[in-house]
Amino acid sequence: MAFRLTILGTSSALPTSDRYPTAHVLNVHERLFLIDCGEGTQMQMRRWKIRFGKINHIFISHLHGDHFFGVYPLLSTYNLMGRKTPLHLYAPAPAEAMIARHLADFDINLGYELTVHTVAGRSMKSILDDRRVEVFSFPLKHRIPSYGYLFREKTPDRNMIREKIEEFGLTVEEIGMARKGKDIIREGGEIIPFIDVTLVPRQTVSYAFCSDTGWFRKLSSYVTGVDLLYHEATFGDDNEALALKTRHSTARHAATVAHDAGVKRLLLGHFSARYRSTAQLEEEARQVFPETEAAREGITYEIGG
Amino acid sequence: MAFRLTILGTSSALPTSDRYPTAHVLNVHERLFLIDCGEGTQMQMRRWKIRFGKINHIFISHLHGDHFFGVYPLLSTYNLMGRKTPLHLYAPAPAEAMIARHLADFDINLGYELTVHTVAGRSMKSILDDRRVEVFSFPLKHRIPSYGYLFREKTPDRNMIREKIEEFGLTVEEIGMARKGKDIIREGGEIIPFIDVTLVPRQTVSYAFCSDTGWFRKLSSYVTGVDLLYHEATFGDDNEALALKTRHSTARHAATVAHDAGVKRLLLGHFSARYRSTAQLEEEARQVFPETEAAREGITYEIGG
Repeated sequence: MAFRLTILGTSSALPTSDRYPTAHVLNVHERLFLIDCGEGTQMQMRRWKIRFGKINHIFISHLHGDHFFGVYPLLSTYNLMGRKTPLHLYAPAPAEAMIARHLADFDINLGYELTVHTVAGRSMKSILDDRRVEVFSFPLKHRIPSYGYLFREKTPDRNMIREKIEEFGLTVEEIGMARKGKDIIREGGEIIPFIDVTLVPRQTVSYAFCSDTGWFRKLSSYVTGVDLLYHEATFGDDNEALALKTRHSTARHAATVAHDAGVKRLLLGHFSARYRSTAQLEEEARQVFPETEAAREGITYEIGG
Repeated sequence: MAFRLTILGTSSALPTSDRYPTAHVLNVHERLFLIDCGEGTQMQMRRWKIRFGKINHIFISHLHGDHFFGVYPLLSTYNLMGRKTPLHLYAPAPAEAMIARHLADFDINLGYELTVHTVAGRSMKSILDDRRVEVFSFPLKHRIPSYGYLFREKTPDRNMIREKIEEFGLTVEEIGMARKGKDIIREGGEIIPFIDVTLVPRQTVSYAFCSDTGWFRKLSSYVTGVDLLYHEATFGDDNEALALKTRHSTARHAATVAHDAGVKRLLLGHFSARYRSTAQLEEEARQVFPETEAAREGITYEIGG
């Protein structure tokens, strides 16, 4: 099973010669979820061999350009590629109106169905629920409405105890029931408890994305216990005042969220161009939460498994 | 003196792993002119060490995304960099309205003055006239209004014949007059013809940009005799029907314009992603106009001089 994250951009608003604006690709069992889409995302997708056709869902945290400017060109590229598969885009208002106006301005007729889902609200919400993964949005605190996203793998089926299949002469249908955690009830009243023929499934895997946001106490409750937390760390301790003023986080803030939430690993990103090296940010975060790493363009992180 | 062109992008609408959308930087005596601004232009500017602060004029051929999507992020980056110098952008309508709406949508207050000049009309027009260069727009033929740009160096001052300065005891003021091509008239009526103390200046240099456009007879008259002609060559002979249908040019069309206009050199660009190599396009163009080269990202072409 795949549950892995590829980082396409780690810069904040000002890209540098080696950092692109925010874009993440989460691969859940070969279905790709694009999270934020700054300028140049499609070039980064080509560079890091992300398969365009496997993306059917795009999640936008907020409508600042460094998280959004890549959307228009990507929509256009999909059109030129002859895309037919519906595409879903999740973003705060007024994304839907903006995109509609943009398509009109540039006289673009999409050859595929684009559905813009408005992300809103002051609490955690399930916004996508499919067979393998459930996606939640939760509010962040930034200068404009901004949302984090939590991707939680659905509980997989239980594992069969191989010998039991023969012992009980289980049919395909009965195996399916047991793996779903349902007791098998045969004609004549015989009951085979699922617990006798299956083992607990492996643990589910989860990933949370938090950018852009200032620190606030409640944030950790949204991302409790996730396997990998990505959290913006625009600044270091030396610019904490600026972080508070601009509603961004320091690396230490990010680590505090990770610590309070009891996550397994923390990934920092959205670095201000003033930090040519991220060593300082990693170091400050690790004082609070040792399992911290600074994200880098093109690196793929295996989550759980 | 500098009069040189750096190519930042050679792709048509669909970028590839090694081709970016259209953007050219023309350096005229260390003043930079940006021509078209597709997605990722600012990253390419960083990569190829173009000095952001030296650009005060941006020329947009037409409002298709692959020539324009880099404008919004660049305006934003200038703002973040604390730009104060006024910026001039030349583009067909409705660029001004679109940019105004964009800035409102993203709640961006520019800290510098942005003037959007609307390029229009069915004939050649002088749109910028400064001390060193004059810029002209001329209409192309594409699916939407599209304009080419001609950059023509102004005639430089005449060169002094060094010995004549002493011989006639010329003052600074008199030298200035003679270099401008004016006879020196002294008190008492003595006339020193400028022709006696100066030599003809070197030839002026010119560059013309034509993209996107289908072929039309009159185009060559707009770019007569330029030192370097950049002309789109989206397709080869094998896709001439598609070129006609989409109002693009083949490499042979571009070469025909170069030939008819009697230019010195032709640079091809705006290549369809279907041509992984540009050898075919170069070859087809050279059959008509031998002094042809396919543009490449990051290459700087010295013009004239």
